[in-house]
Amino acid sequence: MLNHSLSLDLMYAALADGSRRSMVERLSRGPATVKQLAEPLVMSLPAVMQHLRVLEESGIVRSQKTGRVRTCYLEPVALDAAEQWIAERRAGWLSRLDRLGDFLEES
Amino acid sequence: MLNHSLSLDLMYAALADGSRRSMVERLSRGPATVKQLAEPLVMSLPAVMQHLRVLEESGIVRSQKTGRVRTCYLEPVALDAAEQWIAERRAGWLSRLDRLGDFLEES
Repeated sequence: MLNHSLSLDLMYAALADGSRRSMVERLSRGPATVKQLAEPLVMSLPAVMQHLRVLEESGIVRSQKTGRVRTCYLEPVALDAAEQWIAERRAGWLSRLDRLGDFLEES
Repeated sequence: MLNHSLSLDLMYAALADGSRRSMVERLSRGPATVKQLAEPLVMSLPAVMQHLRVLEESGIVRSQKTGRVRTCYLEPVALDAAEQWIAERRAGWLSRLDRLGDFLEES
């Protein structure tokens, strides 16, 4: 549970940045090299690498180096966990609202 | 778009903390006073108020003071936006995977 909580910390922190989200957005359309990820971003390559590190540590992205080229991939299982936590909270809230509606109809 | 991106920044940053997630979890079961939110958390009331401020600034929680009691509520519309962004990225990835599957079947 603690580990799950820690990974949610890392995943949401990773998503709390527009540049990192644009990298995730790009990777949702298919694998990309670091150079391709960097292209639309107005920042130095070391800054891109730093963002990539945060994404990799969160588990949302993984990368593989072949020769001098590092290719990055999205890890949908991690995104699924991040989505799931929010979905469950919203579901809890909606189910409470339904019960409240039933109660008001009955009374 | 910039504003939307800024609010995603604030929402994911707000969710990147276990104490704040436990406050959201509690509020998903119904409104709660600050005192009720603080009860399960091992921290000072000022610390709880600080977390609450982060949640309010992100739009995920709103609160209302009546007399000396501040009651907090979940804002499901904000949570919906946070969930939606992730869902769309996952959907993009899955649709790419489908197209890849079709391509491999055909070739």
